[in-house]
Amino acid sequence: MHQMGIIGYGGMASWHHENIRRIEGLQVAAAYDVDPQRVRAAREKGLAGYDSLEAFWKHPGMEFVLVATPNNFHMELAIAAMEHGKHVICEKPVAMSGEELAEMTAAAKRYGVVFTVHQNRRWDRDFRIVKRALAQGLLGKPYTIESRVHGQNGVVEGWRAHKVAGGGMLLDWGVHLIDQLLYLIPEPVVEVCAHLHSLKTPEVDDYCKVLMRFASGLSAQIEVGTYCLQPLPRWYVNGDAGSLVIDDFACTGRIVRANQYALDWEPEIVQTAAGPTRTMAPRPKETLATLPLPDAEDEADWTAFYRNVLAAAEGREALLVTPAEAARVFAVMEAAFASHEEGMSFKVHI
Amino acid sequence: MHQMGIIGYGGMASWHHENIRRIEGLQVAAAYDVDPQRVRAAREKGLAGYDSLEAFWKHPGMEFVLVATPNNFHMELAIAAMEHGKHVICEKPVAMSGEELAEMTAAAKRYGVVFTVHQNRRWDRDFRIVKRALAQGLLGKPYTIESRVHGQNGVVEGWRAHKVAGGGMLLDWGVHLIDQLLYLIPEPVVEVCAHLHSLKTPEVDDYCKVLMRFASGLSAQIEVGTYCLQPLPRWYVNGDAGSLVIDDFACTGRIVRANQYALDWEPEIVQTAAGPTRTMAPRPKETLATLPLPDAEDEADWTAFYRNVLAAAEGREALLVTPAEAARVFAVMEAAFASHEEGMSFKVHI
Repeated sequence: MHQMGIIGYGGMASWHHENIRRIEGLQVAAAYDVDPQRVRAAREKGLAGYDSLEAFWKHPGMEFVLVATPNNFHMELAIAAMEHGKHVICEKPVAMSGEELAEMTAAAKRYGVVFTVHQNRRWDRDFRIVKRALAQGLLGKPYTIESRVHGQNGVVEGWRAHKVAGGGMLLDWGVHLIDQLLYLIPEPVVEVCAHLHSLKTPEVDDYCKVLMRFASGLSAQIEVGTYCLQPLPRWYVNGDAGSLVIDDFACTGRIVRANQYALDWEPEIVQTAAGPTRTMAPRPKETLATLPLPDAEDEADWTAFYRNVLAAAEGREALLVTPAEAARVFAVMEAAFASHEEGMSFKVHI
Repeated sequence: MHQMGIIGYGGMASWHHENIRRIEGLQVAAAYDVDPQRVRAAREKGLAGYDSLEAFWKHPGMEFVLVATPNNFHMELAIAAMEHGKHVICEKPVAMSGEELAEMTAAAKRYGVVFTVHQNRRWDRDFRIVKRALAQGLLGKPYTIESRVHGQNGVVEGWRAHKVAGGGMLLDWGVHLIDQLLYLIPEPVVEVCAHLHSLKTPEVDDYCKVLMRFASGLSAQIEVGTYCLQPLPRWYVNGDAGSLVIDDFACTGRIVRANQYALDWEPEIVQTAAGPTRTMAPRPKETLATLPLPDAEDEADWTAFYRNVLAAAEGREALLVTPAEAARVFAVMEAAFASHEEGMSFKVHI
């Protein structure tokens, strides 16, 4: 049985702990936290709870370390774990900057350990449905992809509200939505344009919209809001043969496809509430077909991430979330911050 | 009774003709078209139908000329009308370029005539509802405005499909949506980022998304699609106190406002279909209030445009749609085309 220790036994750590109970051959055995209350909580869950990092490193048989602290401690702790020969899973956002990530990646190489980032949302059901719909050609060739997470609370909690800790929504949720897009679209990103707002959280962005152009011209957009009182759909994808909507994380939604070519009928100028229009005239219903979303339950499994890390450490599989991929995500996020600050977008090749 | 002549008696001309029947003191009396069939159609509607432009200019008592031809003929015909001392209403898009528009504007000044553009969608009911909701402070301070027109036909008809004629969706519908935003937000535009596609119409854009940053940081987006098989709402506006959705031109929709401050309750980490989240935890329903959209029927009157042109010609009112405003809209559209072609956005001051 392989042993894992967790640094930072807060909300996410408990979630990891629960998930890892379902992984054969891997168990969470130890935890370190600076907060005595969290050390006690770890002990109550049957873990060896450490308030000393030096003691934690010496936990017998611990091969894996999961770093789940605020962002600004990731690099130091991850590199320290690597120095102690541990394979490292780092929570997202993996670091404060692409530069920090590069140092972490170099350290992993130096110490010969596996290093990965918890980009678990690659296994979210909604994302897997989009991925499958595109792979099955249900939408034809996509030309716009919009990926939104619209919260309503207007509150960014704890360290996520602070710049010094690497908070803000672009780093917290944007990192997932960008990672998903880069994983979905096998093309370089050639433009990044971002608009951020700090509505209720002065130090960091609590709203971000990032428009990305891929090399083929495909236009993708992510949007993370914490104060969007009427959420728009989680996914909106238009292709040259159909359109996909996923309303929410519960994955209600549908695909609408054209079952006749546009020129098979003659749109006429109609009087609509919009005035006379031919271009925007309603399409005859019989020329459209509504399909259910493809099922993706079989792929929507967050535990796949841990199983892969274990297999990668044992040399049985290639790592699924690589430092190189995390570096691309960071490059997009840094281009987004720069775009917002400069007030214009940038040509990039990421 | 003031007399108007129409150049180009096609679909839009008939619509103008019908609308102007409701304007006291103004009537459509004559029409000129290069197509004999359209000349006959004008005559059947009781107009003096001309197939000679020289004869048309001499129509007795004609003070106003409305230009409703394809875009590439606007400048020449509008300036000719001005030379003949006519007040000119030009269909949108007013010209092929900002440069052409400047020539038209200079000609109007030279000949001392009124010159305006048929930006009738300033009086669309959906737009007036948004305008009123913002003016009444129902959303607080807006931070994102999204304005979409999603057609489903995938067909751009007639001259609008051709580059040489000044076609494409940015010029055809984008011109309205941008005009509305500039009319709504009394601030300079400081950034324009555009992504266009030509899905089914090779020569011109049949899809456009234009992201605009206003001087205060307000982020606005217009999107015109001709092949969006599942339309998103016509308007989506988020402010720091509420959110507005207008589904369609028929103006179904609602406003959702916060009736408690965010910090009045403590969001907790919840297990959602999205995994554990505090930021994106559902908000207690009792902290939100749903309001109907404000009524704006009283302002939603396309005939207000013509009445104002008549009053401006008589010196009773200032012109509502000015050449200077049209020039701003054109500057945004030209920045959008340039942004798409360059693959990056531009800082502007429009």
